[in-house]
Amino acid sequence: MDRNVMKQMLDEKVKNVEQIVYQFLPEATGWQRTVQEAMNYSVQAGGKRLRPLLIKEVYELFGGTGREIEPFMAALEMIHTYSLVHDDLPAMDNDEYRRGRKTTWVVYGEAMAILAGDGLLNFAFETAVKAFDYVKPEEMPKVAEALAVLGRKAGIYGMIGGQTADIEAEDRQEPLTSEQLLFIHEHKTAALIQAAMMIGGILGGADRNEIKLLEKCAYNIGIAFQIQDDVLDVIGDSQELGKQVGSDEQNHKQTYVTIYGLEKSTEDVEKLSKEAVEILQSFSRRNEFLEALILDLIHRRK
Amino acid sequence: MDRNVMKQMLDEKVKNVEQIVYQFLPEATGWQRTVQEAMNYSVQAGGKRLRPLLIKEVYELFGGTGREIEPFMAALEMIHTYSLVHDDLPAMDNDEYRRGRKTTWVVYGEAMAILAGDGLLNFAFETAVKAFDYVKPEEMPKVAEALAVLGRKAGIYGMIGGQTADIEAEDRQEPLTSEQLLFIHEHKTAALIQAAMMIGGILGGADRNEIKLLEKCAYNIGIAFQIQDDVLDVIGDSQELGKQVGSDEQNHKQTYVTIYGLEKSTEDVEKLSKEAVEILQSFSRRNEFLEALILDLIHRRK
Repeated sequence: MDRNVMKQMLDEKVKNVEQIVYQFLPEATGWQRTVQEAMNYSVQAGGKRLRPLLIKEVYELFGGTGREIEPFMAALEMIHTYSLVHDDLPAMDNDEYRRGRKTTWVVYGEAMAILAGDGLLNFAFETAVKAFDYVKPEEMPKVAEALAVLGRKAGIYGMIGGQTADIEAEDRQEPLTSEQLLFIHEHKTAALIQAAMMIGGILGGADRNEIKLLEKCAYNIGIAFQIQDDVLDVIGDSQELGKQVGSDEQNHKQTYVTIYGLEKSTEDVEKLSKEAVEILQSFSRRNEFLEALILDLIHRRK
Repeated sequence: MDRNVMKQMLDEKVKNVEQIVYQFLPEATGWQRTVQEAMNYSVQAGGKRLRPLLIKEVYELFGGTGREIEPFMAALEMIHTYSLVHDDLPAMDNDEYRRGRKTTWVVYGEAMAILAGDGLLNFAFETAVKAFDYVKPEEMPKVAEALAVLGRKAGIYGMIGGQTADIEAEDRQEPLTSEQLLFIHEHKTAALIQAAMMIGGILGGADRNEIKLLEKCAYNIGIAFQIQDDVLDVIGDSQELGKQVGSDEQNHKQTYVTIYGLEKSTEDVEKLSKEAVEILQSFSRRNEFLEALILDLIHRRK
């Protein structure tokens, strides 16, 4: 698929995804309205909406036509958002701006940002549980399985596990081993992409083997995306990337590129993304938009 | 039931409840072991284990005999614990000690305490979802309903809503209205007690009307417990209570007693607890231990 066609479709699809996600946001009302406002401010701060988009695209790839994915799309975006709200806190990364807007704690104060993050994480599960209302009794096991995947990939065996390893690596000031670096990328980044593609597959009717393949496909996407980030830090056009080129090196940060060198890193991005697309192409249906999106994500210049 | 008999039974039951809850705690292993250690440190810090105990007692009151309540018992205690871990943070109440032990952020640092709280909240839902594995397909709707109650009572329409109103009331420095005070008590305290009793009822097979009655019963228990707290602050023996008597007044804190006076407050505790026990006695089975426990909780001298 032509890149421009894909980009145009992407714009449309992201608008549609945002509409779905926003439907599930809480109304800000009552004595607890401030936490609801802070939650909505955080979710409405924009972003690629990649995770809910992936749920929907994979769901449709497997022939899904129902609405039970909608609560999961909103839930996953809430989980992604809460992790940013808590990451930005002074005790974590201490960031005052994200995507050009003031971060949640800067606008609402630290206490309210902690509660807004908690509120989003809790509300994510509250929202996902609503999917049971959209299915027939015999489909309930699929929803339960999707819930289990959501929980595992977001928690200590997924994203929170990766954040923990990342924070400790920064504190320790020792060079990362390649195993540690891959653990962090797999858990901090790939886990929620795995959640997205697996949930789409599970609800769309993928069989056990196909779900395994989706997990592997999403792993490749997440890791390739992160390696490309490291590659761009070295070779990228600083204007396009929006940060100082070579900043990782200046910070003495151990990355995939500092461990394996530029050549192998670039080769690995190629290999991982080729494999990811081959997995997608192995299924009985095709989704050319999804294939083009994934290649674009990984091969981005910024 | 004699108070001493009840107390002896309570000790046994709490031990049993702790054993069940601890079974679901994560093993501390791998690159993410620190967050798992911090989570376990927090849950193992002790406490009355009231919420998981209430789940079990109400479940048995309705004739439940399965094991699908066990993941919910652990989940609710994890949610209660995460709320304490985040409450103790410097940006919230800034508490260094709880139950005579250093709080989680003092031992593991602020960043890890934020992650441990997030980890517990996420793991609570991961754990509760396991209940689907313990039931027959036709019982899945009950588990889904219990999950929905867990989410609602813990989130912005429950506990987090109450915490938000409480923090804002403290910041605002205006005297609380009685509606605001009841909102805070209902959501910050009663909501998780409601979750416990409703989940026990739902999984035990209570009908819709009985679940409504359990919600009302738990509301009364939570509110009476809080009013009694305010009463004890005025009249209690400071040694027994473990805090300075009259400290609320010294802090110019608006409480039920400062709004309604001591006499009406004491009467209301009586009225609320009598109603709560009458609700329990209206069901076809009796649980005399539970009735005695509730009266003891509300009428405690410390």
